Amino acid sequence: MSETDTQTQVQDVALIVGSGPGISASCARLFSKEGMRVAVAARNPDKPVLHTLEKTSGVRRYACDASDPASVERLFEEVGRELGAPTLVVHNIDGRVPGIFRKGITEVEPGMAFDTIRNSAFSAFLVGQQAALRMRENRPNANGARGTIIFTNASAALKGFPKSGAFAMACHAKAGLAESMARELMPEGIHVANVPIDAAIGWTQDDGTRAHRLAGTSVDDNLADPDHIAQTYLHLHRQHRSTWAFEIVLRPWVEKW
Amino acid sequence: MSETDTQTQVQDVALIVGSGPGISASCARLFSKEGMRVAVAARNPDKPVLHTLEKTSGVRRYACDASDPASVERLFEEVGRELGAPTLVVHNIDGRVPGIFRKGITEVEPGMAFDTIRNSAFSAFLVGQQAALRMRENRPNANGARGTIIFTNASAALKGFPKSGAFAMACHAKAGLAESMARELMPEGIHVANVPIDAAIGWTQDDGTRAHRLAGTSVDDNLADPDHIAQTYLHLHRQHRSTWAFEIVLRPWVEKW
Amino acid sequence: MSETDTQTQVQDVALIVGSGPGISASCARLFSKEGMRVAVAARNPDKPVLHTLEKTSGVRRYACDASDPASVERLFEEVGRELGAPTLVVHNIDGRVPGIFRKGITEVEPGMAFDTIRNSAFSAFLVGQQAALRMRENRPNANGARGTIIFTNASAALKGFPKSGAFAMACHAKAGLAESMARELMPEGIHVANVPIDAAIGWTQDDGTRAHRLAGTSVDDNLADPDHIAQTYLHLHRQHRSTWAFEIVLRPWVEKW
Amino acid sequence: MSETDTQTQVQDVALIVGSGPGISASCARLFSKEGMRVAVAARNPDKPVLHTLEKTSGVRRYACDASDPASVERLFEEVGRELGAPTLVVHNIDGRVPGIFRKGITEVEPGMAFDTIRNSAFSAFLVGQQAALRMRENRPNANGARGTIIFTNASAALKGFPKSGAFAMACHAKAGLAESMARELMPEGIHVANVPIDAAIGWTQDDGTRAHRLAGTSVDDNLADPDHIAQTYLHLHRQHRSTWAFEIVLRPWVEKW
Repeated sequence: MSETDTQTQVQDVALIVGSGPGISASCARLFSKEGMRVAVAARNPDKPVLHTLEKTSGVRRYACDASDPASVERLFEEVGRELGAPTLVVHNIDGRVPGIFRKGITEVEPGMAFDTIRNSAFSAFLVGQQAALRMRENRPNANGARGTIIFTNASAALKGFPKSGAFAMACHAKAGLAESMARELMPEGIHVANVPIDAAIGWTQDDGTRAHRLAGTSVDDNLADPDHIAQTYLHLHRQHRSTWAFEIVLRPWVEKW
Repeated sequence: MSETDTQTQVQDVALIVGSGPGISASCARLFSKEGMRVAVAARNPDKPVLHTLEKTSGVRRYACDASDPASVERLFEEVGRELGAPTLVVHNIDGRVPGIFRKGITEVEPGMAFDTIRNSAFSAFLVGQQAALRMRENRPNANGARGTIIFTNASAALKGFPKSGAFAMACHAKAGLAESMARELMPEGIHVANVPIDAAIGWTQDDGTRAHRLAGTSVDDNLADPDHIAQTYLHLHRQHRSTWAFEIVLRPWVEKW
Repeated sequence: MSETDTQTQVQDVALIVGSGPGISASCARLFSKEGMRVAVAARNPDKPVLHTLEKTSGVRRYACDASDPASVERLFEEVGRELGAPTLVVHNIDGRVPGIFRKGITEVEPGMAFDTIRNSAFSAFLVGQQAALRMRENRPNANGARGTIIFTNASAALKGFPKSGAFAMACHAKAGLAESMARELMPEGIHVANVPIDAAIGWTQDDGTRAHRLAGTSVDDNLADPDHIAQTYLHLHRQHRSTWAFEIVLRPWVEKW
Repeated sequence: MSETDTQTQVQDVALIVGSGPGISASCARLFSKEGMRVAVAARNPDKPVLHTLEKTSGVRRYACDASDPASVERLFEEVGRELGAPTLVVHNIDGRVPGIFRKGITEVEPGMAFDTIRNSAFSAFLVGQQAALRMRENRPNANGARGTIIFTNASAALKGFPKSGAFAMACHAKAGLAESMARELMPEGIHVANVPIDAAIGWTQDDGTRAHRLAGTSVDDNLADPDHIAQTYLHLHRQHRSTWAFEIVLRPWVEKW
């Protein structure tokens, strides 16, 4: 029996860092439906959306401050002990502090810029580091992969928009980290991907109405549906290592770019 | 019954322009297996690989000189008449003329550079134009798409390598065309994608041995398997229009970039 | 006496391919004022602007169809014989055929797309090839350079705009060629640069009024002044080989990008 | 007398944040030679190189911790009071902490990554913010500019290299900040530029020998000479606002990229 054959039995364990009713929830539902054990980590693991995911999809909830090194290390230890070592890690934290949105470069308080970078980019470093550390020990699966690390990103990773300096820093930093990790870890069998979503996220709520993250955005076609984003994450996770994508920008059909 | 519901019955018709034992054959097999009607167009439709695809996968063979406007128009008419209007078109032509490989800028005969651009980029224009013209008339399918146009490209689209000036022109031109078409056609419901493959292509032959396109390349992990490339093309075709990717670079895990 | 010292005496010979009242004329005037011998090549060397440049700046006029290999070769021979081997070559041809502006992908006649690529990108190949061939024989100047090749480009080289497919192809192709040539020729001491101008060009006419290339554009700040573009070309030519720039995008302060 | 004419008398005041024997010193010498009043800020303003610059070029030395908001604000106040409001600000801080060089993603201590980002990117935010705040009050000069802000960057801003994750984050962040500031501030007459140097920096010491920043690099052609880098900074500062460059990558002729 070849090494590859035995590897088809690898049990997928997905860890989603960052929670919310959009991409994280969609990923949790899809990954669970596809047979993975799923963990979701949040500063506050008692959010209603997480309790719902626990009930409907069997997702495990974890408390984690993703910008604190010790907290992130503890998270990976707990998940590893309880569900098994992660084979798919999604960093899904936007990180913008309240009040920073559309502030000009001279209007942003330095502390707000600092916190945005720490929340978003530094947490990506910590999560990526722990994921790399653990995935190295995984056996390769049928596609030759020891694991997949996906960084959700924003259009601010592709373009520095005016009145968005601090967020541009955070998103560019996350993209640079992801690219460095991809070049370093892919030859070790760890698939690293950066996925900028070039749109606001919109989803259908339990009552059938559409919701979205950014106040003031009209609810129409120009929103990326997180259920479909999750499909592309799953495709990335299932790519054979002979054809790995590093970056996929997702945008709605009517988005200007 | 909503417009979307009726659209789930859309019969997929795939047209692959360019033929060969690599990406074209893999796409033909996969698309056929997924229930699409499949057409493959080649300068010489009597190549053994096409006869094999006809027998094993029910693929229809078409003769076409993809750099001749009249020939391309005729191809789309014939396919439309015999299989139905294409909903997925793959332009899969490399276009390099014999002898141009690794020639320095002063060593390439102008005529060779000219033919490479015409074979690759101008044919992409012709195929893209006809595809756009026909797909506009399609009904949207369940994902809201009237059709998908995929341009296979090379790493020369991402980077102008030394001793590769003419091919860099051709690949960059194809990428620029694809990007312009994506911005123009996506809001009309036509998904356009550029897929640079950052590797030589390698596949397993009938006798179990590995083959590849470029003489002198060693047959090892550092080859992109076209069966896996085809999977990503299928994923692109099935993306919902709320989350369309324009560009996906595919490369093997051990490739330097 | 060191090799470098003797090289300070190198007489600069500038050849500008493409003519017109904008960038070509500004370059011709500035280069001449800086002590270079200047040649300007045009399909029709009897254009009034060229006669004016001849009178006011001592510029030599040459006839050349830049998309014809034999004509380009002849041009370099003539300039070499009459002024000396070029040390600075500017390819300044836009190449769009009449009627192609803002045409959608299905509205452009294939022949128009073809001619645009040939006029712009293929002529860049021919001019670049001849320049490389001749500059290789030059002695290095005080900055260690055997010559400088500058390709004027457009924002369509950076972004494929909708309703601009053929021009996107041409400009991307030129950029890819320039990048390949830069990687190949810089280590030989030939500085290659791609300069996309992200704006319409506007200049002051003899009567003091402002003129510009694109009909329908308002004459205001949002135009790039070719006299200032020429200054950056001169800076590129004078960069020491320890710090060569390959690409500089120039845009007016109020331009959106 | 037109507004522009009176503006030719604007006295240039250059503030260089970050000090060292490479780019900062070269800029200080050149800017001083060109008639500007020059300030250099460093954590330790008593470094010998700064005393030398003070003696030979009349440069003023300032103490500043560029990652501390209050310290940066104080710096701009002092320079404004003593030399006049800056018209040219160069952020020239690399920011890598000792020991981080070529460390893999799992080898870097989180605190080192954090400090590298703060030293480099957060300080760029603080310096850029203060520069924007002050330059807005400047009168436009003869080129229509109220001031120029230049961020020195590294090739890690262009590409995430393996074993360089934290530095990739910092450099990408700085590039994203610069791009956002450029889009926001250029229409206000403030020229913002990002200048990645794709090479190690090498310079000639007082004793005629060559020195460079990175231990283990051989001293040869493959080093960017900071005196020539300073020339491009000066060119950027003198560009007319009708043709501003945002990004210029500088690399030695023999550098691979």
